[in-house]
Amino acid sequence: MNNGSSNGSGRSPSNLPPLSLSILGVEPLDEFIREVADFIHHMIGQRPEGANGVEVEAKVGVLRDKVSGQRLSLPVLVETIIMPNSVDCRFESNMSPIQHKHFNTLLNNLKTTSSTPSEMNYAHLHLVDSFYAAPDGRGEKVRVTRDEKSGAVQACVQKVRLGSLDIYSPKRAADWRISVNVEIPVPQPIGTATHTRKKDRMSYTHEEFIVDLTQVTSTFGASSKPEVLHELEVELARPEYLLSTAAKRGDPNVSESERGAFDELIRAFVNNARILVRNSGDGWQ
Amino acid sequence: MNNGSSNGSGRSPSNLPPLSLSILGVEPLDEFIREVADFIHHMIGQRPEGANGVEVEAKVGVLRDKVSGQRLSLPVLVETIIMPNSVDCRFESNMSPIQHKHFNTLLNNLKTTSSTPSEMNYAHLHLVDSFYAAPDGRGEKVRVTRDEKSGAVQACVQKVRLGSLDIYSPKRAADWRISVNVEIPVPQPIGTATHTRKKDRMSYTHEEFIVDLTQVTSTFGASSKPEVLHELEVELARPEYLLSTAAKRGDPNVSESERGAFDELIRAFVNNARILVRNSGDGWQ
Repeated sequence: MNNGSSNGSGRSPSNLPPLSLSILGVEPLDEFIREVADFIHHMIGQRPEGANGVEVEAKVGVLRDKVSGQRLSLPVLVETIIMPNSVDCRFESNMSPIQHKHFNTLLNNLKTTSSTPSEMNYAHLHLVDSFYAAPDGRGEKVRVTRDEKSGAVQACVQKVRLGSLDIYSPKRAADWRISVNVEIPVPQPIGTATHTRKKDRMSYTHEEFIVDLTQVTSTFGASSKPEVLHELEVELARPEYLLSTAAKRGDPNVSESERGAFDELIRAFVNNARILVRNSGDGWQ
Repeated sequence: MNNGSSNGSGRSPSNLPPLSLSILGVEPLDEFIREVADFIHHMIGQRPEGANGVEVEAKVGVLRDKVSGQRLSLPVLVETIIMPNSVDCRFESNMSPIQHKHFNTLLNNLKTTSSTPSEMNYAHLHLVDSFYAAPDGRGEKVRVTRDEKSGAVQACVQKVRLGSLDIYSPKRAADWRISVNVEIPVPQPIGTATHTRKKDRMSYTHEEFIVDLTQVTSTFGASSKPEVLHELEVELARPEYLLSTAAKRGDPNVSESERGAFDELIRAFVNNARILVRNSGDGWQ
């Protein structure tokens, strides 16, 4: 995978001492990563009491103008965070089968050649989601996720959307969206599913992150043609770790590393999302 | 000065190994800094043959809508580079006398407390610029800069603007503009200056950079009132170093540190500009 990192770190001619990072001797804070960390921290704080199944994910896709359907165009040259509710666009979490194959190859290569101390684990999952109306007739629908082969129930939840941030990437073939949701376990519903979808998912796990490359086949009724989407997302693997670091963010009573663990987690999350976006080839727009 | 850097770098609880920077083990490239480096490199390549007095500077100020005069407003949450010629705005390189005093205090403190290996040097300059029509009646006007006290000529040049990039900083009190110019030495002009300006400048030098905090008093004629502006800019101190690193950028025949020296120089330049912008208090808009 291409990380595009530049590593020059000396002054030439070689008799000059290395350049300081700045007049202060340090890099100024990364405003983008800080904004994302503040957003996620704030959203986590808005979750319903006792709901700890927090899901933080970044999906790779394309931001489209709602009217024209064309990819969003803003007068800026580099990746930036769009102000919520200020631009009339939608996020399309889909890619071509060729793109999907491209990412599959990249991630498989990374699995065998990763240069980090941690290994990348892989699982190929075949899941079926069935959706049911909310038990009280209001609120979010209920999703039952089963292993396709065994039929064993993996999850039975209502998903509550807490918020999302759209990231516009004019230099890249794709944009991305960060979403914060909470999944609340509920009793298994009775009755008939309103619709179902099959997920053929290649799931790569690295440290605190899961990268899911999924082919989603949705069926809305016997008479309608199934819809097939190809999705790529990176998500935080352990809600309990996320919540424990979030609770200690900036706390003067814990160690410096504990105090900064949430921001380090979000930094790696943003880095991973960026690496995926920057490796998205053509064929999106 | 506030650098706003966050330094947490461990996972808690403390039995977890440190988090990798990404699935690739490295930070992805900083798209913003790369864009600025590409821009400056390209602009340098456009200079007239033999003109090596290249000036690269970042001015701190406010981007204003040309029609309303209000500060520019784009639907983004973090600092970004504006696409040239896409937004109808002008850059105002000015601040209040209180802001000026604020930066003077900050820079003086930094001079005495800098934590980098290099010291910061300081000079208080009193200069007078006189402007004359171009000798051939076309092209850029001629600027003669003299020491106010001794009258000694410091420079006699035509300044050719090569290009500029505007940086919008919605989280900060000020925006900034990067300009690339070339100053071409010319013979001293004969005749009367069209206008003059006095520069009372506090000039701080750190490694390859000069931070100039200047009060500019312009006089356009005996009958009109002088205009007073307060400016802050950071510029590259040595055009010859800039050009030598630019020439070796990415060259496979030189050492890695020489190959990367241009990008490291621009990284520190951007860092310094950001540190100034982030320390700009209120009172700009």
